[in-house]
Amino acid sequence: MKLANMVGERFKDRPSDCVIDSHAFSVRGGYIKYVANGIYSLYPPMKRVTAKIENIIREEMDAADSQEVLFPVALPGSLWEESGRYESVGEELLRFKDRNDTPMVLGMTHEEAAVHMVREWGNTYAKYPFSIYQIQTKFRDETRPRAGLIRVREFTMKDAYSFHTSQEDLEKYYDVMANSYFRIFERAGIPEVISVKSDSGMIGGNVSHEYMLLVDAGEDSIVLCDECGYSANMEAADTTVDNTGCSPAKPIEKVLTPHCKTIEEVCTFLGAKVEESCKAVVYQKNMTDEYVVVFLRGDYEVNETKLTNLLKDKVHAANITPECGLVAGFCGPYKQEAKCEIIYDKSLMGIENLVCGGNEEDYHYTGLNIKRDIGDVEYVDVAKIRTGDICPCCGKKTIRISRGIEVGNIFQLGTKYSKSMGMTYTDIDGSVKTPIMGCYGIGVGRLAASVMEAKHDDYGPIWPITIAPWQVHLCCMRPDKDECKAAADNIYSELQKAGIEVIYDDRNVSAGIMFADADLLGVPVRVTVGPKNLANGQIEISTRDKSVKKLVAVDDAITETINLVNELFETINSSVRPRK
Amino acid sequence: MKLANMVGERFKDRPSDCVIDSHAFSVRGGYIKYVANGIYSLYPPMKRVTAKIENIIREEMDAADSQEVLFPVALPGSLWEESGRYESVGEELLRFKDRNDTPMVLGMTHEEAAVHMVREWGNTYAKYPFSIYQIQTKFRDETRPRAGLIRVREFTMKDAYSFHTSQEDLEKYYDVMANSYFRIFERAGIPEVISVKSDSGMIGGNVSHEYMLLVDAGEDSIVLCDECGYSANMEAADTTVDNTGCSPAKPIEKVLTPHCKTIEEVCTFLGAKVEESCKAVVYQKNMTDEYVVVFLRGDYEVNETKLTNLLKDKVHAANITPECGLVAGFCGPYKQEAKCEIIYDKSLMGIENLVCGGNEEDYHYTGLNIKRDIGDVEYVDVAKIRTGDICPCCGKKTIRISRGIEVGNIFQLGTKYSKSMGMTYTDIDGSVKTPIMGCYGIGVGRLAASVMEAKHDDYGPIWPITIAPWQVHLCCMRPDKDECKAAADNIYSELQKAGIEVIYDDRNVSAGIMFADADLLGVPVRVTVGPKNLANGQIEISTRDKSVKKLVAVDDAITETINLVNELFETINSSVRPRK
Repeated sequence: MKLANMVGERFKDRPSDCVIDSHAFSVRGGYIKYVANGIYSLYPPMKRVTAKIENIIREEMDAADSQEVLFPVALPGSLWEESGRYESVGEELLRFKDRNDTPMVLGMTHEEAAVHMVREWGNTYAKYPFSIYQIQTKFRDETRPRAGLIRVREFTMKDAYSFHTSQEDLEKYYDVMANSYFRIFERAGIPEVISVKSDSGMIGGNVSHEYMLLVDAGEDSIVLCDECGYSANMEAADTTVDNTGCSPAKPIEKVLTPHCKTIEEVCTFLGAKVEESCKAVVYQKNMTDEYVVVFLRGDYEVNETKLTNLLKDKVHAANITPECGLVAGFCGPYKQEAKCEIIYDKSLMGIENLVCGGNEEDYHYTGLNIKRDIGDVEYVDVAKIRTGDICPCCGKKTIRISRGIEVGNIFQLGTKYSKSMGMTYTDIDGSVKTPIMGCYGIGVGRLAASVMEAKHDDYGPIWPITIAPWQVHLCCMRPDKDECKAAADNIYSELQKAGIEVIYDDRNVSAGIMFADADLLGVPVRVTVGPKNLANGQIEISTRDKSVKKLVAVDDAITETINLVNELFETINSSVRPRK
Repeated sequence: MKLANMVGERFKDRPSDCVIDSHAFSVRGGYIKYVANGIYSLYPPMKRVTAKIENIIREEMDAADSQEVLFPVALPGSLWEESGRYESVGEELLRFKDRNDTPMVLGMTHEEAAVHMVREWGNTYAKYPFSIYQIQTKFRDETRPRAGLIRVREFTMKDAYSFHTSQEDLEKYYDVMANSYFRIFERAGIPEVISVKSDSGMIGGNVSHEYMLLVDAGEDSIVLCDECGYSANMEAADTTVDNTGCSPAKPIEKVLTPHCKTIEEVCTFLGAKVEESCKAVVYQKNMTDEYVVVFLRGDYEVNETKLTNLLKDKVHAANITPECGLVAGFCGPYKQEAKCEIIYDKSLMGIENLVCGGNEEDYHYTGLNIKRDIGDVEYVDVAKIRTGDICPCCGKKTIRISRGIEVGNIFQLGTKYSKSMGMTYTDIDGSVKTPIMGCYGIGVGRLAASVMEAKHDDYGPIWPITIAPWQVHLCCMRPDKDECKAAADNIYSELQKAGIEVIYDDRNVSAGIMFADADLLGVPVRVTVGPKNLANGQIEISTRDKSVKKLVAVDDAITETINLVNELFETINSSVRPRK
């Protein structure tokens, strides 16, 4: 393709609304066009990148014996009522009515559609296991779309669903899929993706993993242990706090703490350690407005997803009214008389001498010993893990928190959907059973943007050749000079004949514009035909990552270019792990 | 792929709700799964057929220098307000509001999104012409979806949009696209598709063509002339009626016609020819409820699309109230005093002695001579053309009406969208101009179903090899016999190594079930490994269309199969017209 004809503008200045680099390059490089909040059109370069990613995904899914199908984007609400999600999912599920007033939804995931597709067919054990997938448009009505294609409302996603007759069989396939996922990311040029144990959230099920690309601009926090290789997302990481060496027990005593509102202020005023204080965080349950008070060590924060999972209900920050009995800012567990649910976080375990709220304006207790003063309580884990905390795997104080982008996820769903939607099969012994499911997702556009985020310099993306929009970017400097134009035209035609994908810039523009555009398109191999080198019988071949830059004889240019393209492919493909 | 593992059921009995054969085979063959009215999931065989069709379309669009892009499915209503279609399109445009109460629509075509994408980029003449396309999900909230994938609410469509600086340039590209369309249908195995001049309807513009596959089950009527090759759809075909040889003029006279309601009853009662009668059809305009009376020859019907185009407003059957002044059943043009718009169809031209309504209960006029009794009136063409009518092209009475399915359409849009949406470019002389557009659509699923409708026998589809879900259907009769299984397994493996797409049936089922399933999958080449032939060292190779059926030596089976596959491809591809 000739660059002169390609639709989409490239420009120099970073748009002011782009916070992360990949978003800025997506706009500046003519990859995406903003249509509405979280909704973009894709220009040819991004369409080409996503098509290549889709092909890699398709090959890996096919190799994992998953069968490609297609579910609708618009689904009847009744199907989501079967699973209970029509009610349970929030406003991110876009609901609407068609011209006959029938409730419909735009599919955000397709568990219901998958069960619906195979519910009758999968009626006997002999047909199991099986797996189906689609690559299709999804819609999630996100509150805050951001960062270009990273968090959008409409996106193309590969979603696969597997069906099994035993947990063991699901786990076996889950491993195959986990391996396929690593292969997909390796083939797409980001072998550094790690898998982390995660919370299953709205999808349901028990075991799940997220595939994380660690980049500073990532919107997720990931818990890592460099010592043993442990990784998890924040919700899934057990927080273990070491309280050995705490002060010995003292009598409990109510003390005046005027004007001390935060736990830090109280501890400073009393000369106590924050690590020996008991902080209260007050919530209300979304469904009942019932108060929930979480007590945890003063220097920890509540992880609200852990809390939601524990309560099986979402919560919001409490509106503490005079009638509720809680004293805002002075809430403590000792002689707490308000009607509320009380939760003790594990971070308080083993501390014998705590500062805590006095349940009276301007008063706190010192010397609280929970076991002695309150009795045996149940400790649960609802605290956010922190850098330096104890690794739940190897037990060392080696936890590190990194930022990352979730580029894929896999779930062991269990029977949540098959059971609620009445899918059964007859087992070999004639008994009727419910199949066990897994599901497996990758957002195509997000993956493209993530690669851009992980692989770029100051001037634009550096695409891995496996997913680059083109393989070779051919620049003809001075196309007004016949010999330049003829040499470049010949290379264009010969490379295309050899099956190489070439973007050809023969515009009559300055070298500055030509190279800036080439940097923004990020094509891995660049061939530059210029009058000076050509006068010496030479053509320049370089790579976008600057690792190669050489002059070759005109006669060798085509072979050298093809060899370089093949080498780049080989470098990526040779490091992909074998299929399981 | 092994048939035993493939999701989707095949069964024997025709579903009672399937009117046309392709719909019945789509359901019986495990191609589609009903999800909601006009909304289907696609099982692997149909997904494979549509993917192949998409690839053919993609290759032809790329060859026509159209650039693949992707527009969103969910679009902001504001974009459709720019073109005026947010208001003007009916309920088939699905409108909804997102969580922020922003009006949105589901894209049914993407003219607005196309202009939005290139509006800034296409700001200078030097960038023209250019063309963009996408293959993406569309939604049209049809009142009456029917016939499986032929008329659905959600579907995958290729839609292309071209931009030009002159009408001549548009016409040049329109011809290129017309040729690409023929190539697409030829490559998909339906070279018999014809292009017909059509009415542009909601899309707008002046010149447009529909690509029609002539099948008895088609939902469209097509006007053909076998004499000169003229073709058009019903709306686009001018109706010319030959009224030579009519009775001479007589005086006008009011006559009692008791109990005669229809024009046929009146003519019978009066002993007049229906061909010399003037029928009234009464409508009301949708927007104003104003009455519109169409007078036309008694034996013709009104084509309401022609009428709508003439009035620039949709109409509905009239509710004739006592106050409106029209006399239901006795409405005539002479001394017509009701407040209404009167339209004279061309079919009345040249008749000098007409029977018409008397504008009074139970009365008609005879001897009406419009020119003499009413004066000079304007005759327009709003009548439905009929078999035996005069061909607008060659003038012979050779018109024939056939049934067909519209499998594609192309439009010369003019400046309808570019103008309303404020897209301009600076011409070479510095003047600011509005680009001229074309648009070009093909429904992928409908094309698949249409091929099935055109190419089938009593037992299932007969897929052209270019779009068949697989190229070879391998049947292993008696897989319980080791020698059969081993021979078939070997063929399966060798054919796959040779790059042939094989569906392999090694189920332990009866020959009846095995062949019925193979017929329903319609794969063009069948290889059957059976114990009897194998004992003679032979394997059977046949084609789905029964043109080939032969026994070959086991050692030759693989080569012979590959040759047959190649021959089938060659037969189709060699007859595809060259690219323009």
